[in-house]
Amino acid sequence: MSKSVDINCDLGESFGQYSIGSDKEIMDFITSANIACGFHAGDYSTMKKTVALAAEKKVNIGAHPGLPDLQGFGRRNIALVKGEAYEITLYQLGALEAFVRAEGTKISHVKPHGALYNMAAADPQLAEEIVRAICDFDPSLMLFGLSGSELIKAGEKAGLSVKNEVFADRTYQDNGTLTPRTMEGSLIVEDSLAVKQVAEMVKHGTVTALSGNKIAIKADTVCIHGDGKHALLFAQKLNESLQKEGVKTAAAQSK
Amino acid sequence: MSKSVDINCDLGESFGQYSIGSDKEIMDFITSANIACGFHAGDYSTMKKTVALAAEKKVNIGAHPGLPDLQGFGRRNIALVKGEAYEITLYQLGALEAFVRAEGTKISHVKPHGALYNMAAADPQLAEEIVRAICDFDPSLMLFGLSGSELIKAGEKAGLSVKNEVFADRTYQDNGTLTPRTMEGSLIVEDSLAVKQVAEMVKHGTVTALSGNKIAIKADTVCIHGDGKHALLFAQKLNESLQKEGVKTAAAQSK
Amino acid sequence: MSKSVDINCDLGESFGQYSIGSDKEIMDFITSANIACGFHAGDYSTMKKTVALAAEKKVNIGAHPGLPDLQGFGRRNIALVKGEAYEITLYQLGALEAFVRAEGTKISHVKPHGALYNMAAADPQLAEEIVRAICDFDPSLMLFGLSGSELIKAGEKAGLSVKNEVFADRTYQDNGTLTPRTMEGSLIVEDSLAVKQVAEMVKHGTVTALSGNKIAIKADTVCIHGDGKHALLFAQKLNESLQKEGVKTAAAQSK
Amino acid sequence: MSKSVDINCDLGESFGQYSIGSDKEIMDFITSANIACGFHAGDYSTMKKTVALAAEKKVNIGAHPGLPDLQGFGRRNIALVKGEAYEITLYQLGALEAFVRAEGTKISHVKPHGALYNMAAADPQLAEEIVRAICDFDPSLMLFGLSGSELIKAGEKAGLSVKNEVFADRTYQDNGTLTPRTMEGSLIVEDSLAVKQVAEMVKHGTVTALSGNKIAIKADTVCIHGDGKHALLFAQKLNESLQKEGVKTAAAQSK
Repeated sequence: MSKSVDINCDLGESFGQYSIGSDKEIMDFITSANIACGFHAGDYSTMKKTVALAAEKKVNIGAHPGLPDLQGFGRRNIALVKGEAYEITLYQLGALEAFVRAEGTKISHVKPHGALYNMAAADPQLAEEIVRAICDFDPSLMLFGLSGSELIKAGEKAGLSVKNEVFADRTYQDNGTLTPRTMEGSLIVEDSLAVKQVAEMVKHGTVTALSGNKIAIKADTVCIHGDGKHALLFAQKLNESLQKEGVKTAAAQSK
Repeated sequence: MSKSVDINCDLGESFGQYSIGSDKEIMDFITSANIACGFHAGDYSTMKKTVALAAEKKVNIGAHPGLPDLQGFGRRNIALVKGEAYEITLYQLGALEAFVRAEGTKISHVKPHGALYNMAAADPQLAEEIVRAICDFDPSLMLFGLSGSELIKAGEKAGLSVKNEVFADRTYQDNGTLTPRTMEGSLIVEDSLAVKQVAEMVKHGTVTALSGNKIAIKADTVCIHGDGKHALLFAQKLNESLQKEGVKTAAAQSK
Repeated sequence: MSKSVDINCDLGESFGQYSIGSDKEIMDFITSANIACGFHAGDYSTMKKTVALAAEKKVNIGAHPGLPDLQGFGRRNIALVKGEAYEITLYQLGALEAFVRAEGTKISHVKPHGALYNMAAADPQLAEEIVRAICDFDPSLMLFGLSGSELIKAGEKAGLSVKNEVFADRTYQDNGTLTPRTMEGSLIVEDSLAVKQVAEMVKHGTVTALSGNKIAIKADTVCIHGDGKHALLFAQKLNESLQKEGVKTAAAQSK
Repeated sequence: MSKSVDINCDLGESFGQYSIGSDKEIMDFITSANIACGFHAGDYSTMKKTVALAAEKKVNIGAHPGLPDLQGFGRRNIALVKGEAYEITLYQLGALEAFVRAEGTKISHVKPHGALYNMAAADPQLAEEIVRAICDFDPSLMLFGLSGSELIKAGEKAGLSVKNEVFADRTYQDNGTLTPRTMEGSLIVEDSLAVKQVAEMVKHGTVTALSGNKIAIKADTVCIHGDGKHALLFAQKLNESLQKEGVKTAAAQSK
């Protein structure tokens, strides 16, 4: 079982005059930054600043492509036509690459955002399109996806280095999927329990599902939130707690 | 004096259900395609198709970045803030690069679109930002700009391979600038005169200005339009006429 | 059974430099124009021109609100949040109202566009939101919806004057719904058959379903397309044929 | 000289997941709310909420139309084509009207936003287009514009009820224009001085220009900012101070 874990966070989601997230502060507590690429959030100015910040903090830079839906923040399902997920991913990968290259650094990974992430977790065709875009762009990039999802499977099949993502503050079902937000008990409100769940997942490769059953789960990277004061406190707590448990936090590495 | 000239055309300007241009047909008459990158026109699906088409037809592929103004087709001046032209250019370069790379080919040049082109022709700071974006992205790319403009000067200063662009159907002032569209005599309506003007510019490095004076002009690449049936006929006529005059049409080459 | 029918067409769907539809020509063959309001198509300039054209041609003016999805032309399903269909409809109704008022005329009806139309035909909650927006804005407006659909039912329940819309070139299932485009036989390709279907629907209140069975259908208004040369020819043919059959074409009237 | 003054604030400028402004809190300190209409800021959901809030707080509701530039927050000059300012204003007026009508209340005034406001202050043609849009929509609406500007003149000429707007935290030039932000001394940083300036303008119809000269100025309505904790404190201070000076704050009234 792995004794090291990556901590990732979605960043660069400000837009124009609109500011979201404590990007600068959260950088100290994460090892991978998923940077929005202008479709669901972010813009060319924000991308430039966020890439520079991540480079300065030596945090891994990932593309965080989303659906073209600024008003919905990429969280509303949109019925894409065939091939569109491929194109959406490719376009945003390229856009971020330009800023990363200008900064003299490299993209390390790709993590789809919001509805694109969720749809690709369940839909093999969508997953395949996203994976193909990454392969066509740069097959050495790592792919972050929901642990055990269709996206992870599609990435493995194509030979990508995949990283199973787990969540600190969400409970799991017996089949390894997240408890839907609409169900009672979907969220872990207490920080200490969230931190404990992560430690269990990383150290033992298991998680105690909502039912009480212990199930197997792969935890290569943990997603934390970047918005709000509580997010910063939780990020700090998670880092300290993992250290105490003897779990190293380290940026995900391509196998 | 050069006996060879590049013929370029703006392509890939369709958007969603909206179709503009006879991209497929015009490809046979040009040597360089400037492909819209989704800001003033074009979208990820159109970019994919247009890049594939240009690759198949072995036409040079250029990025055609514009202002973020779909409704105005990138033709309305927008007062950009400092650094924005750099970011706009970089973002769109990257987005196109992704499709070009996936197609297994390369970007050869950059030609700004519409208001961005015109503003950069006159404004040294804007020109410098665009040039810097190209240098940071890939200094081996050629830069197409209005012949003798500030954009060309900025490109030369930075060591880029620049290509002076001339127009077949526009008249020139004694100082080498285009006669503004608002002035009488700005357009050359008759095809035979337009074709003759190009031949003179390429073969002799001169153009007969609206005043009747012969002035010096550099003509590395000629811009033609891609929309409408007349555009196709003119493109054909220009090719035939240049051939007769002993002028070779060939894709611009990085020096 | 009604011996009179309304003929409606979606218009004003151009955007910026992008032109779609033969709005001017089709106006002579229709009695109701559904004008795009800037979300899925159309823009403020197009709206102004189209409203003026409809007013001049004395064609009924309807609002044609769509999903906020220009690239998808409002045809992709988007998972709206609760209340959003109400807001989308209200916003676009108001925007069109301004141009109609400035032209000194009135909105007569509302017909949702594309995915919003289809989703509201099947989803009672969405239908209710659209109906409520119309009631809150102006309960004297007529509502056009798919014949027999949830949208029509919601409109009737709220006391709106509803108009059942039928299609000339689509076949029907035994339960009165349109044969899905993905199934064989969904389209009626031959004009004479399409025209005959309309005549039967209007004169006898029945349609011969794809199965061969005659089923009941309400036909208050017929939708025709406004794009392409064939559309104009078909519109003309439909008008002539209905006249021969003794069916009057007349703008829908609020009951 | 007037002993009563309106206090207005730009509100409803949030967009999707992006939140700006302390709309709820500032409502207690203002008499007129200028509500964004979805072009430079705001969206249909934000408009609905903000209109409801203003209605509940019995604050006058004004339309706050801006340039179609969400990323630039409507603050970048865009070279509009002839007629476009008319159409932009009309579209947004209608969109807001729909929400206001659904709430059972009325629009009282119009105040253009940002670059549209500034361009119309100096450009008589643009000013005339905005004024014409208001006249065509509802000539009983009041027009808020920079005190003494071309917009105010155009409104007066057309017979609109105009309200001269002044700023608490900006200094003035001898000719009555605002000191440009690029010049030293353009901002009044100390609250007590800003409050004093307003009192002088309202009570005596004069302002002490940056040069030290006392000049005449019309002050019908004062603009305050709605963002940040300081904004709330200043709003409170301004209200208290004006009360002490014997100046009543009251919503602007159509003459």
